[in-house]
Amino acid sequence: MTFPQIDETHDPALKSWVASAMGHADFPVQNLPYGVFSPDRDTRRIGVAIGDEILDLAAIADLLPLEVREALAGTTLNAPFALPSPDRLALRKSLSALLCDAVREAALRPHLHAASQCAMHLPTAIGDYTDFYVGIHHATNIGKLLRPDNPLLPNYKYVPIGYHGRASSVRPSGVPVRRPSGQRKPPEAEVPLVGPTARLDYELELGVWIGRGNALGDTVPIERAADHIAGFCLLNDWSARDFQAWEYVPLGPFLAKSFQSTISPWVVTAEAMAPFRIAQPPRPEGDPSPLPYLWDEDDQAGGALGIELEVHLSTARMREAGTEAHRLSVGPASNMYWTVQQIVTHHASNGCNLSPGDLLGTGTISTPTPEGFGSLMELSGNGKTKVALPNGEERMFLEDGDEVILKAVARADGFVPIGFGECRAVVLPAA
Amino acid sequence: MTFPQIDETHDPALKSWVASAMGHADFPVQNLPYGVFSPDRDTRRIGVAIGDEILDLAAIADLLPLEVREALAGTTLNAPFALPSPDRLALRKSLSALLCDAVREAALRPHLHAASQCAMHLPTAIGDYTDFYVGIHHATNIGKLLRPDNPLLPNYKYVPIGYHGRASSVRPSGVPVRRPSGQRKPPEAEVPLVGPTARLDYELELGVWIGRGNALGDTVPIERAADHIAGFCLLNDWSARDFQAWEYVPLGPFLAKSFQSTISPWVVTAEAMAPFRIAQPPRPEGDPSPLPYLWDEDDQAGGALGIELEVHLSTARMREAGTEAHRLSVGPASNMYWTVQQIVTHHASNGCNLSPGDLLGTGTISTPTPEGFGSLMELSGNGKTKVALPNGEERMFLEDGDEVILKAVARADGFVPIGFGECRAVVLPAA
Repeated sequence: MTFPQIDETHDPALKSWVASAMGHADFPVQNLPYGVFSPDRDTRRIGVAIGDEILDLAAIADLLPLEVREALAGTTLNAPFALPSPDRLALRKSLSALLCDAVREAALRPHLHAASQCAMHLPTAIGDYTDFYVGIHHATNIGKLLRPDNPLLPNYKYVPIGYHGRASSVRPSGVPVRRPSGQRKPPEAEVPLVGPTARLDYELELGVWIGRGNALGDTVPIERAADHIAGFCLLNDWSARDFQAWEYVPLGPFLAKSFQSTISPWVVTAEAMAPFRIAQPPRPEGDPSPLPYLWDEDDQAGGALGIELEVHLSTARMREAGTEAHRLSVGPASNMYWTVQQIVTHHASNGCNLSPGDLLGTGTISTPTPEGFGSLMELSGNGKTKVALPNGEERMFLEDGDEVILKAVARADGFVPIGFGECRAVVLPAA
Repeated sequence: MTFPQIDETHDPALKSWVASAMGHADFPVQNLPYGVFSPDRDTRRIGVAIGDEILDLAAIADLLPLEVREALAGTTLNAPFALPSPDRLALRKSLSALLCDAVREAALRPHLHAASQCAMHLPTAIGDYTDFYVGIHHATNIGKLLRPDNPLLPNYKYVPIGYHGRASSVRPSGVPVRRPSGQRKPPEAEVPLVGPTARLDYELELGVWIGRGNALGDTVPIERAADHIAGFCLLNDWSARDFQAWEYVPLGPFLAKSFQSTISPWVVTAEAMAPFRIAQPPRPEGDPSPLPYLWDEDDQAGGALGIELEVHLSTARMREAGTEAHRLSVGPASNMYWTVQQIVTHHASNGCNLSPGDLLGTGTISTPTPEGFGSLMELSGNGKTKVALPNGEERMFLEDGDEVILKAVARADGFVPIGFGECRAVVLPAA
């Protein structure tokens, strides 16, 4: 496995002439995430986040490596994601140098836009979106609620379980989510009821952006999987638990999920993540080793991600009272039974073609104990116990007006932490 | 429900100046299906099939209604599918008149291409592909093999069961399908095996092309669902039954399906199907009525499709011997528990946005008895009995070199039958 390497762009001593980048919680100059933004009503541009500002990459194309210029002229990141990794690395190095060289400020300053004044869009035209289920503690927590004696199904430790999701309803942070209507069948009901979900939930996930694709019929060997990953985001896989329980046999979740999925709009690149790679946690004793097609020594040694994930909830009453959002959970992204490289390799193992700009979700990432449960279904024991909020409110599932905010930060000793920006959306009442 | 009406374009007395259209099994002038074709190596054009020829629509745009011209200039049918239904109808009427008016031959003849000399492509850039499971006899036949006492799950008669499929691996007729590799776990094995599927199967389905879309958060009321359907095709949902059995809990089929799906490239329009609408078969006594959001009197009266579906198999030995393909099954498309309108309404009932050019599959359509079983899993009793072929060969599942050919024809008394063209692909050995 060849992962992007630590280089001069990760140097903690780097100083950008963009003042707000110094000590920025999310976007110091060591991060340099890409996104698609509108500086005004009519324009979409590819940009890079630096502190509180966004640098317009098409506008400064003549200062960037020749081989990336054409890919940056579009209105999505599909083309830059398809670039060979050396080109993507050259772009990063060039941006890092430009943003740290005070001589460049005069030329670049006109192309910086205050992030607070810009609208953010989906980073790519998502061809296909696939959601996995590799958060083993989530799978175990949910499994215990449904099958106390047998929480994990027999395939779980061999197969990175996943399903196709709905690409058309993925939306960037900030777009409200409408409470969906649908069928649910409470155990005591003779026939299913139709109406707004009574069990609206969030799911805390990491999103993985596909870089280089593979042709139909080709596989992605595990040794080369890292080369197919362009970057990462946060993903809230909104779920209507009551619809899901009724519809999901035998073909899996469908309308319980497809009404909306929310992502953070900035793509934290695989290159930026170089210092934050960690070893895949060892499997519990007695668990099988990954099958050979999913096994790579380098992947085990450094294929996991040192990211801390958080869920915050802001209710309408909190916002009226001017109270800060309440943190519901915090936990490490390394609570995944499979690495993101293994997910990619498995997905393409039957010859399925992945394309630049495709989105993969990891599935909900939880801890074994409640402080890092990544969904309300886990926190409330599937609607059995109330979750107390500091202002006296309680929740078992989401109510109208609730705003869910996902956050993430990658940390490693000796390096400047980098953040993902927010993934947030407020729940609107059913239509 | 407002379905497209029978009009002068369906008149059985119509005669086209394209000689091969008269009595053509698939493409008489009463059909007029749209597709995307290449008359040469470098060009993609929108065309209409007429007999053995294809008329280039962009090339004759100045003879067509003003409101459709721009939509026909592209290289996919997404834009024409998005047109309001009156515009789509105007296009059909205009093409019917042009192809029946001998005076027009001189002007149009240069823009006719022999279909045998053209390559066909996917008709649209498929945003999302969703596969349903509404063939009740298939669901029952498969259910009996897996759960003899309880073949249909409790949700089946309330929910049009479906799942998201893989859009990127849909291919047009003629593109060979590579036998996929993956995990399977025979009951006697301790751990799963990895290798080429030993249980490759086809599935006979009807494809539904979405026309007008709905915005995220909006629903498609059943009374208006027909207006969102642009047309139909054949769909072979290739399946690796051994992978499917091992991977499908709890999130549904994934790699067992995503290696390839094959469609017939011609879109038989909703307008062309007007004479072939029939009543939805009455539900067996004791079955629940559709829930109110899926109930429409006109849909029940005329929302099913009078189409006969066939599966043919041509083995390598048959082709060497010059023998014709063997018909494995024949049965009516009306063996669907839900109409295509109900599928569309259900899909959007949670606010999920459908887009022009999206593809829906009905799921396998089978008969209660073997003459119309739509998959080898049903014909072979899940690999328990051999299916005898006329040349002495036998099959339980597909072998390398087998070619599967789906066909369909719509028939109604007093009207000229119209066909779908072929949906065919040959199985290549595993890589």
